[in-house]
Parts: sequence; structure tokens; C-alpha cells
Amino acid sequence: MTNKNKPYRLRLPGPTAVPERIRMALAKPVVAHRGPEFAEVMAETGQLIKPLLGTDNDVMAFTSSGTGMMEAAIANVMAPGDKALVLVNGHFGERFVQIIEALNLKADTLVAPWGEAVGADELAMKLRDDDYRAVIAVHNESSTGAVADLEKIGSVVRNSDALLVVDSVSGAGGLELQQDAWGVDVVVTASQKALMCPPGLGLASVSEKAWSIIEKGAGQARYCWDFRRAREAAAKGQTAFTSPMPLIYGLRESLRMIHAEGWTNTLERHRKLSSALRAGVGALGLPTFTKCPMLSSTVCVFEVPDGLDGSAIVRHLYETRGTVIAGSRSKLKGKVIRVGTMGCITDEDIRLDLEQLEGALSDLGWAVEAA
Amino acid sequence: MTNKNKPYRLRLPGPTAVPERIRMALAKPVVAHRGPEFAEVMAETGQLIKPLLGTDNDVMAFTSSGTGMMEAAIANVMAPGDKALVLVNGHFGERFVQIIEALNLKADTLVAPWGEAVGADELAMKLRDDDYRAVIAVHNESSTGAVADLEKIGSVVRNSDALLVVDSVSGAGGLELQQDAWGVDVVVTASQKALMCPPGLGLASVSEKAWSIIEKGAGQARYCWDFRRAREAAAKGQTAFTSPMPLIYGLRESLRMIHAEGWTNTLERHRKLSSALRAGVGALGLPTFTKCPMLSSTVCVFEVPDGLDGSAIVRHLYETRGTVIAGSRSKLKGKVIRVGTMGCITDEDIRLDLEQLEGALSDLGWAVEAA
Repeated sequence: MTNKNKPYRLRLPGPTAVPERIRMALAKPVVAHRGPEFAEVMAETGQLIKPLLGTDNDVMAFTSSGTGMMEAAIANVMAPGDKALVLVNGHFGERFVQIIEALNLKADTLVAPWGEAVGADELAMKLRDDDYRAVIAVHNESSTGAVADLEKIGSVVRNSDALLVVDSVSGAGGLELQQDAWGVDVVVTASQKALMCPPGLGLASVSEKAWSIIEKGAGQARYCWDFRRAREAAAKGQTAFTSPMPLIYGLRESLRMIHAEGWTNTLERHRKLSSALRAGVGALGLPTFTKCPMLSSTVCVFEVPDGLDGSAIVRHLYETRGTVIAGSRSKLKGKVIRVGTMGCITDEDIRLDLEQLEGALSDLGWAVEAA
Repeated sequence: MTNKNKPYRLRLPGPTAVPERIRMALAKPVVAHRGPEFAEVMAETGQLIKPLLGTDNDVMAFTSSGTGMMEAAIANVMAPGDKALVLVNGHFGERFVQIIEALNLKADTLVAPWGEAVGADELAMKLRDDDYRAVIAVHNESSTGAVADLEKIGSVVRNSDALLVVDSVSGAGGLELQQDAWGVDVVVTASQKALMCPPGLGLASVSEKAWSIIEKGAGQARYCWDFRRAREAAAKGQTAFTSPMPLIYGLRESLRMIHAEGWTNTLERHRKLSSALRAGVGALGLPTFTKCPMLSSTVCVFEVPDGLDGSAIVRHLYETRGTVIAGSRSKLKGKVIRVGTMGCITDEDIRLDLEQLEGALSDLGWAVEAA
């Protein structure tokens, strides 16, 4: 059995540490999910989430993982025979391709090297040459720390018949997102990243342009994730199927905390702390892996120098300091380490990250040059 | 705003009241979902659930509502062109037909009047006449209180090529279930009924006969709910996608409580308390609606006499006593009331149910005859 008294610090790029105030909200008594008490919770939560996504749409809630919401988005906007264009620059772009293929639909890709981002000009050219039902982008590619320039991408896609579908699972709540202004048609996200909740709750926000496709009955092969049913329920302050109530209590609490800090202050804190971590870890000799113009505020990804193994750093930090960061589960395995900088993190977290990482690197024989 | 100081007693046939001990488990700190600490939780939970389902299968966990698990079961065992035979005797049987049709698959039905159950002889005849990929049964039809005789149904289906798929969402944990002995191929259930947890966690247990179909790639059009991926993850004490950790902490606590009481004692308590409620409410002049040989231990459904409106009883109990029971959301609307008798209920709950219901009926002008 693991030692219950060992210190433990969760510094993954999700799931992220959940503040006590939110954990206590999870423990509230369960009430009737279609009664007036819960409708109030849904209504407040539904209002508080809108500024984080930059939308006036009614946001729909689902019992779902982040991947479930990616699948739901595809299943709703695409019909048999439809083709999507997926912007792939990391693990989650690749996952979208897998999902689309698992649903017997077609995916073309626009690929950028991992750590970079697909450019809007390249996308514009591709959209002139071919017809797509949807362009699929990952807002914050947490496998690499690359952020998609959704404003530019949106300005290209809005002039086509395609819908812009965005996975902001590890973005929303920690990165600026202006769904309506940028012309994003479908945004999906989940509870366990910058929204500071445990996993289990998915959210989706859908534009009028997307509704016009979804309502025509595109993508028939789904039941629980049918956005039409969810929209009807959302209009009554409900979910279509029994709601994951503790997580909605938790999300309400999280959103209250974010608005108490001030949403723009929350964004600024994420920017400042992620920059500080990148500067500090760079000084330890581990440069930032990400090369694209927009660096993530929610996850920092670092190159592991030759002679060091990323997995060994992750393991050693856990075993000696009880701090859990991430390596890579994909083709960067061993070559990068990844640290979450989203949710309830503070200056103190970054200070500890740097102190512990410096210690761990030194234990592993890495001679840190004087900065 | 609703009055936060009003008494509140949740007596629905799900979601059910969650004991404080389980609510506190939901609030435990989130850890890495693929780390050793959480693997221990998964392993313990995975062992403790088996006796409740009567299986040696590894039980898979999903971020899902109950309906999601119904859809997942269909999506995994049925491929395009396949036909299912759905035993329909209430709302959830009808929902299975809707799901199958939404997935562009074919459903035949064997229908029994609501409150009764489809007989095994009729099923045997149907299976001789036609080929089905799956026979779909609802263990505990919570819209009517009817329990399917799965032992008999299983003995018929096991002699065919069809798989027996069972929704035990409102059964498992409160009704006897012997998946392996009865020849049930797929059992799905969810956290928010007799398992005493909030909604958000789905479970599935799959027989070797079903795996042989699923592994051949039946039902391609799914990603998150692909049982093959879930099985691989379950073998490592994980879930395929980020796990709804608070609910798994909660389920572990629930299962510890059930095994501390003794699983057969838990079943006996459900039987005893549901019988007591039926006897008491019958004495108030509201007979049990359910007519089939096996009455539910987890939900009691009562006929509302002419001159009374079920919805008015439900509303009045809530408004004057803060007690939430259910009416019907389907064709029995106004004609029945439904009370959950599952999860953490005690003698005291039944006593209060009867006292409050007698009072409410009297308020509404119903002259209760001396029993």
C-alpha cells in the first residue's frame, strides 16, 4: 500500500489540484436533479461560465470526460460522408483524427511539427481547394504547450461553409477565449483543468451557424450526446440525462472564485506564473520545448537535455518530493517534462516547482550552471 | 431563491440520498489518475463490486450517466445491420428502443403491459423464429416497479447466439443479480441508485461470450465507450480516459458500507423495507401498481385512486413536508406515485414516508379508511 503520510503535490497539466472550497462543494447533499433547488445552481453556473468562453450561448453540461466531449462535438456536427480538416500539432489533434475515424467519418489533416502551430494562411489555401464540414482545432495542445491562434483561424473559417470546432479542454479558464468574437462554432471543455474541479463534467457551447447544421440532423448516430436534446434541457436549467450534480456544485464554486479574483486577473496570473516557470526552468538548463508564437499559460513543456531521461525526472520528483509532474505518453516520451500552470496555482507553487526541480536534477547528476 | 432552511428529504427512485460518509469521500484530494495511489482505490473498488453483480468479470468504470451506459452497451455489441430484441414493459425498455434507433440499428420488441414483465416462454418462441444479436432487458423497470426474471430469461438466451444485455441501473446494489450464474452477457449500472453515490459514474461487466463479439469489432461507431479500450485500461487499474475520481472514491466507500452490513443483509433490508412501504401505503388506500410476480425492492410504485392526481400528491408532499417523491414522466403521469426504497434507507424513512403521505392525502381531501 502507498504511504498515506507522504507529502503529495499534484502538478500535472490536468487533472489539477482541487481547492478545498471546491472539494467541500462536491460534498453537498444531493437534491432532485429536476427540482427548483438544482435549477438555481444550474442557472448561476450557466451565467458565470459565459465570460470564460467569451460567449452568449447557453452552455450545455454533460456527464463526460474531455475526450467524450471531443467525440460529442464530432458526432453532432458531422454526418456520414462528411469530411473534417483537423489541425494536428500534437497528441490531442491526433486523437481527433482517431475519433473521426472511429465514427466512420473522414479526416484530412494539416500538420505542423509538434511544438509549433498550424498557420492560418495554410488553412485558407486548404479551404479554397476542398469542402469540409468542419475545421477542428485544439486551443491548447497540452502535449506540447502550443496555443492555436483561434482569432486568425476563425477569421478564415467564418468565410467558408465549414464549422470551426475547438477543443479547449486545457485552455478554458486559463487562456483567453472569445468564442463569439472569434467565430468559433463549437467549443468543448471539461472540468478538471483550469476550471479547478475533478474530472467528470463536460461543457459545450454551440453557435447559431453550428445549430443550423445540427438541427438538420447531421451526425445521427448518437443519443446521450445529442446536442439538440441537451439544448432543450439547458433551456429549462437541466441536463438531458441525470446530471453529475457534485461537479456542477463544484464548477459553480470554481466560477465564483474566478469571478471574485476577477476574470482578467485570473488570466494575468496564469500568464505571469507560466512565464516565471519557463524563465526559471530555462535557467536550470531545460529550455521551453514550444516554438510557436503563442505559448500556453496553462501548461509548460520543457526539453530534457541529452543525457537526462524525462521519465526518470518525473519518477524521481515523485519518489523523493511527492510532486507529480508529467512526462509524455506519446512520441516525446522521455524527451520532455510537462508541468501544469493552471487552476489554483500561486507564486509559492512556482517557487517550490523550481526548488524541487533543481534538487531533483542535481540528484540525477545534472550540473546546473550558475544562471 | 428557494428557502435554504426548509427541510428536505430525497425519496426519489434515484438519484438517491447520499450518506455523509460517502459525500465526505467525494471531497478527498484529487490525485494523479494513473498513479499508484489511485490504482489502489480502483483495485479495491473493482473487487468489492463483484459480489453485487454476481460476477468474476473485471468491472469497467466510465464517466457516464445510466443512459450513457445503456447506449454504450448497444454501441459495443451491435454492428450495422444487426437487430436486437428489446423486452419492453416500461419507460426504460422504450428508451432502449429509442437508443437503438438513434444508432441506426434495428429493434424488435416483445411488449408486456406496464407493471407486468415479459415472460421467458414468449421470448423462447421469438428466439426460435428470428435471429437477434442481442436480447435487451431492464432488470428493474423503475417506471413501474417490475423486476425481470433474469434467471429464466438467461436460461433461454444462453441457448441462442444472442447476447443478453441487461440494464440494472436501478437494480444493482438493491436487488439480487447473478450475472455469471444466470448467463447475463452485459450488465450496465450507474452510481446514483442503490449504490448510494451521486450521478456521474457508469459501470459495465461483460461476459466471455460478449467479448467474442465485441473483439471482432462489432459496433464500430464509438470511441470513448469502446469496451475494448476500457478493458485494457481496467487490467491496469485505470480507466481509458480521465477517471471521475470523486465518484470512484465514493463508490469504494459505498461498497465498504455494504460489505460491512453484509451483502445479503443489504438485500434483505431492501426487501423488508419495500414490503413494509407497500403494505403501509396499501392500507392508506393506494394499491401497488406492479402486477408481475417479482416486485422491486428498490422502488415502490402506487396507483393513485380516481379523484386524486399523482402530480398533486408529489407537489404537496414537497411543498408542505420538503419530501421529494416521484410521479411519472411518461404515460402514467398523474396516475402513479413512485418512492425509492434503495440505498441508505432505514425503518425510520419508511415510518416518515407513511406518516407524511397519510398527512398529505388527508390535506388533499382523501378520506383514508381505517386500516
